[in-house]
Amino acid sequence: MSDLPADFADAMNALLGDGWNTDLATREAHASDDSRRSVLPAAVALPQTREHVQAIVRACRQHRIPIIARGAGTATTGAAVPVDGGVVVSFTRMNRILAIRAEDRCAVVEPGVRNGELQQALQPHGLFWPPDPSSFETCSIGGNLATNAGGPRAVKYGVTRDNVLGLVAVTGTGALIHVGGAYTKCSSGYDLSRLLVGSEGTLALIVEATLKLAPRPQAQAGLRAFYRDASSAAAAVSRLMAQPVVPAMLEFMDHRSLALLRQNGSDVPEAGAMLLIEADGSHEALPDILAALGAAAEGEGLLDIDVAQDGAARDRLWAARRALSPALRSIAPGKINEDVVVPVSQVPALVAGIEALAEEFALPIVSFGHAGNGNLHVNILYHPDDADESERARAALPRVFALALSLGGALSGEHGIGLTKRDHMATAFDAATLAAMHAIKQAFDPEGILNPGKLLPDPG
Amino acid sequence: MSDLPADFADAMNALLGDGWNTDLATREAHASDDSRRSVLPAAVALPQTREHVQAIVRACRQHRIPIIARGAGTATTGAAVPVDGGVVVSFTRMNRILAIRAEDRCAVVEPGVRNGELQQALQPHGLFWPPDPSSFETCSIGGNLATNAGGPRAVKYGVTRDNVLGLVAVTGTGALIHVGGAYTKCSSGYDLSRLLVGSEGTLALIVEATLKLAPRPQAQAGLRAFYRDASSAAAAVSRLMAQPVVPAMLEFMDHRSLALLRQNGSDVPEAGAMLLIEADGSHEALPDILAALGAAAEGEGLLDIDVAQDGAARDRLWAARRALSPALRSIAPGKINEDVVVPVSQVPALVAGIEALAEEFALPIVSFGHAGNGNLHVNILYHPDDADESERARAALPRVFALALSLGGALSGEHGIGLTKRDHMATAFDAATLAAMHAIKQAFDPEGILNPGKLLPDPG
Repeated sequence: MSDLPADFADAMNALLGDGWNTDLATREAHASDDSRRSVLPAAVALPQTREHVQAIVRACRQHRIPIIARGAGTATTGAAVPVDGGVVVSFTRMNRILAIRAEDRCAVVEPGVRNGELQQALQPHGLFWPPDPSSFETCSIGGNLATNAGGPRAVKYGVTRDNVLGLVAVTGTGALIHVGGAYTKCSSGYDLSRLLVGSEGTLALIVEATLKLAPRPQAQAGLRAFYRDASSAAAAVSRLMAQPVVPAMLEFMDHRSLALLRQNGSDVPEAGAMLLIEADGSHEALPDILAALGAAAEGEGLLDIDVAQDGAARDRLWAARRALSPALRSIAPGKINEDVVVPVSQVPALVAGIEALAEEFALPIVSFGHAGNGNLHVNILYHPDDADESERARAALPRVFALALSLGGALSGEHGIGLTKRDHMATAFDAATLAAMHAIKQAFDPEGILNPGKLLPDPG
Repeated sequence: MSDLPADFADAMNALLGDGWNTDLATREAHASDDSRRSVLPAAVALPQTREHVQAIVRACRQHRIPIIARGAGTATTGAAVPVDGGVVVSFTRMNRILAIRAEDRCAVVEPGVRNGELQQALQPHGLFWPPDPSSFETCSIGGNLATNAGGPRAVKYGVTRDNVLGLVAVTGTGALIHVGGAYTKCSSGYDLSRLLVGSEGTLALIVEATLKLAPRPQAQAGLRAFYRDASSAAAAVSRLMAQPVVPAMLEFMDHRSLALLRQNGSDVPEAGAMLLIEADGSHEALPDILAALGAAAEGEGLLDIDVAQDGAARDRLWAARRALSPALRSIAPGKINEDVVVPVSQVPALVAGIEALAEEFALPIVSFGHAGNGNLHVNILYHPDDADESERARAALPRVFALALSLGGALSGEHGIGLTKRDHMATAFDAATLAAMHAIKQAFDPEGILNPGKLLPDPG
């Protein structure tokens, strides 16, 4: 849809003033996300209040105009791409931290607040919000909520869904709903908060969130463990997660990832794979925690283990880890980046299966990520101008999903489904379960105006 | 409904054999729960497989016969009472622990498994499932899922909803849905698992659950802190939860609760209130954890603090704590038992407000419970044969709810809404939010056959 009804556009203009944009530059700036797919919206709305959001939804509903909620546009799945045109509702002007309630360990925020901004505001209170995607400096809380974002800390502190206490949201009918609040326990009605988290803007637009905070640990330390090959590192992941001390992060990197780290200036030796194992806790407890994690990391195939250097060197290592995803394009310009998840006991089988697929399809596949959650970023690399390579990359993708599903896993651990994975939903869920999801969609968004073409495959 | 269509009854009889009961004794045994309300069902079905459950739901749907899912019948809210007659589906024959996957920290169970039974089976693996309601020895996992049960450990380990990874369930259309699995992170479609948890059998019948397990801590120790009055104990709760060391349990008992504990043979002195503060962790870390918790417990109004005795004496204290709820009837035979929840910072205001209500209504109100979650059991005691007292008790109840809501809290922290609180839902939620919940109900149970008359008020 590229043309909007004149009365609708006039009403939006009257409502939003300079928060209503139909100029090409603004539309172009809101056409894409990190999926590199791009479709122009008809307009971009920048609401400042929940009443604005309600009015936008009601007007769009009346005219059956698609609404695409947008945070910072860092989604990797095309969730923020307006495939059917319509109005992109960007939350950049709803970006206030409304309250930090240290004594209730929660913060109340608008969706446009950036993750990193919130973390900074929480620092003086000795608190943090656990979700820490690589994009934390730029991504918005609203986007974290939409995708159920995770990050390395999730292994100990949980994902976004585990760290939300309440939401205020506008459904597809324009209704404003309030669920949950500044309390950690609730058996009062249906839990709509956790349903909306991860729904990728297809059920409602979140206008306020009460987030559960965690106390900052006194101290942190990390181990770097190098293994002969990926399978021995994967076996160590299983051992680490089967013992009682939960690491604060447990990251896996295969040999290609290590090569990229070296290229980016990190001081890591050549090895088949590396685990970054972080511990946190009190000063007194930390040595014992590290000792327990170190003992579990030991075993068949371990080449070397050391305490990650303190200060600047450690920061560099983590910065390089976060930069891995963009750095991949230096191997090949084409990248299919997935983030399948499997039971932790199946991480060795996942890693072995991906190596076999790399061989079968004669393509570099780089794997790294949040092994403690069984959640690996699987990057299929190819040259888009090489037709044969591109074809092999496209053919390898469903095999990666089939592998994860055959191991009892799921399509995505933290990125979401969006545009790029919705065709695979029918292999991940049976028809009855998809039908139940469609019924939920229908209940919240009867006209199907909220982020159409995302997450769920077309019904039937 | 007391008469069932003959063809329906014949079909159920053919399907279930001795698992289909219409005799009075069996119906009477399934007429009530711990709410002491009682209505006879027309029949009691004891399915053994998910296919049985699907067939029961489909047949009931065809004839518009109510279905009341039942675990062990320990609900306090009337959630298991068949107010409209119909068929009670008891899960006592679906009581297998299907798998304990220690390496994935999860267990797969049928809903009829008893909480205590699962804990025992997990012990050799060094694992436990966090939810620990007072009734843990008898209550079923299915009931825990239905009510989003909590217990003392929730302050550190979360409630049922936080400890479920996946469900298999039969919706009100008879469809079998599968959501989640043996993994801790998922951004793949709508999170129906956490929606079904706490839905009190009104959306679907759960036939299998994958539960998240936690490693058993090496060591535990507890503090007993006695305070001059309830308000100084409540202030200590706020201090305890505002510092970084999370207690494993943080229980509040007012002076009437202490009197009952003494009556039950516990060695506790007279005081205005007591906090039971439990710590857990490694042997090495425990002393520091206890020290941090002890320091936070200190302050205005603290009379005495000691380390709870080890072994038998400590077990007796906890047993007496668990026995508090039934023991209340020794004060007065009538008891209205609620479990409101408020933000932790508001626990002092809640305790003060309840004391004021006790005075205003001239009734004993005994408060104790999971203060670290802001979740107090508020027991209004009265003599049912005293008409004036009964009337005052009934009049005090909505004021308790109004108090909790005015402090930013909710109607129930762990018991659920059931029959007894559904009339208060309209004060807890606005019309738009209730409408969204009704829409969800409609999506899962279009004929309204699943546990009618529970949780949600009638629409409109």
